[in-house]
Amino acid sequence: MQKMQLPIGVFDSGMGGLTVLRALRSHLPDESFIYLGDTARLPYGTKSQDTVRHYAMQMARILVERRIKALVIACNTATTAALSHVQAMLPNIPVVGVIAPGASAAVQTTKNQRILVLGTETTVASHAYQGLIQAALPHACIQARASSLLVALAEEGMVHNHIARAALEHYLSQRVDEDTVLLGCTHFPVFKPLLRDLLPEHVRVVDSAEATADAVKQALMDAGIANTTQPQKKTHYLVTDSAARFGAVGAIFLGEPLNQQDIELVDA
Amino acid sequence: MQKMQLPIGVFDSGMGGLTVLRALRSHLPDESFIYLGDTARLPYGTKSQDTVRHYAMQMARILVERRIKALVIACNTATTAALSHVQAMLPNIPVVGVIAPGASAAVQTTKNQRILVLGTETTVASHAYQGLIQAALPHACIQARASSLLVALAEEGMVHNHIARAALEHYLSQRVDEDTVLLGCTHFPVFKPLLRDLLPEHVRVVDSAEATADAVKQALMDAGIANTTQPQKKTHYLVTDSAARFGAVGAIFLGEPLNQQDIELVDA
Repeated sequence: MQKMQLPIGVFDSGMGGLTVLRALRSHLPDESFIYLGDTARLPYGTKSQDTVRHYAMQMARILVERRIKALVIACNTATTAALSHVQAMLPNIPVVGVIAPGASAAVQTTKNQRILVLGTETTVASHAYQGLIQAALPHACIQARASSLLVALAEEGMVHNHIARAALEHYLSQRVDEDTVLLGCTHFPVFKPLLRDLLPEHVRVVDSAEATADAVKQALMDAGIANTTQPQKKTHYLVTDSAARFGAVGAIFLGEPLNQQDIELVDA
Repeated sequence: MQKMQLPIGVFDSGMGGLTVLRALRSHLPDESFIYLGDTARLPYGTKSQDTVRHYAMQMARILVERRIKALVIACNTATTAALSHVQAMLPNIPVVGVIAPGASAAVQTTKNQRILVLGTETTVASHAYQGLIQAALPHACIQARASSLLVALAEEGMVHNHIARAALEHYLSQRVDEDTVLLGCTHFPVFKPLLRDLLPEHVRVVDSAEATADAVKQALMDAGIANTTQPQKKTHYLVTDSAARFGAVGAIFLGEPLNQQDIELVDA
């Protein structure tokens, strides 16, 4: 098989990265994908950088063994902990994380240089988004809020009920006059409709998943490996545990049902 | 050291089991404890039985290497998946889980034989509580509700705010005339005050942690290994990841601050 016909590997700690896969499939309709969810060890968001890095390197190796032409780390925590390590390990293929594209998109979106970042504990504590935004906009005022409850709400499919509303209101309660809210966790795009209800109209919601899909498209073109011949359009799923739960909960994030036959259990 | 002076080993997927440790220390004030939290791999509640069993056996081995006189599996998911396996592996010491004591307590508490069980997805799906209660009360009407959001709320320390209230109301919304609510997850005792507010006065809240501490006390007496000589009263903590987070979040469940110096990082 020609390199351009190989699939793009995507990995995440579990199901949240399916929001990135969804954006990728929409932006790159002619590509195939292998998505790996490390469901045996999710969530990464409360684990240390060392542990997450170790897991991320394992995940990258599993995908490389399946032959891929590019790798997307569709997980904020893993991107923070391991992007540069995975890039060093795989010098011959583009490796794209979700942080830099999300931070860039926020920088391009804000007009008043005030940005609210919502993420997991680890992502917020890593200052990865804050650092990249500050590097581009030295006078920006950035507030970051650990919003772990949103992960649990999303996984229960509670994305538009009164509990989700109360939780979002809680996390937005310290918002001052930020004109941009950056969703720094792949679980959070499912709350976009509710966020639109809760936020003033001029506030923009920036979604790392969409920004990452744009960055991957660019990287494929730069490397001359975008699939311009036979379109593939296949997606295969690998999980380290609980294929049934992955299928059920994953549909929330993918935005469409997952075919249980496409989900393969692998050993980490 | 005489066997009766050895500590009691307690393990959990993370911090929730500290509610069990708290009950144990209160019921057994002369004993020492080694508590092991598998924080690198929490939560167990969304993982498959096979994976959880594999982890639980590893945790039991780590504690046995430290020399213990009894083992408490302070985690509902691990008890369901692995109690009988760990008992078979350790025939020479009492091994107590949280399910049977909790189920017994609910059986002894209910007057109208109607019980609501709140637990994680895996615990509820395992039917472990339901099966034991039904065996004792064949005509009992048992409703079990997966309440995963409560785990995230507890870990954020949101145990008495309006979001916790909305979540509990949601999980209690299908309650009919159950006179007993069984807390089938070690995270949930922190919600007892709020549950008392929300439930009619005649409804009893049964806490597996308290019931388990009673069962451990009985097992030590039966085996003649309760510490009746030099009281020890020490607790040492082992974690597989993030000692800092364990200390901070653990205090919610232990009900008192944890001393960071007492927390040791171990490799699983």
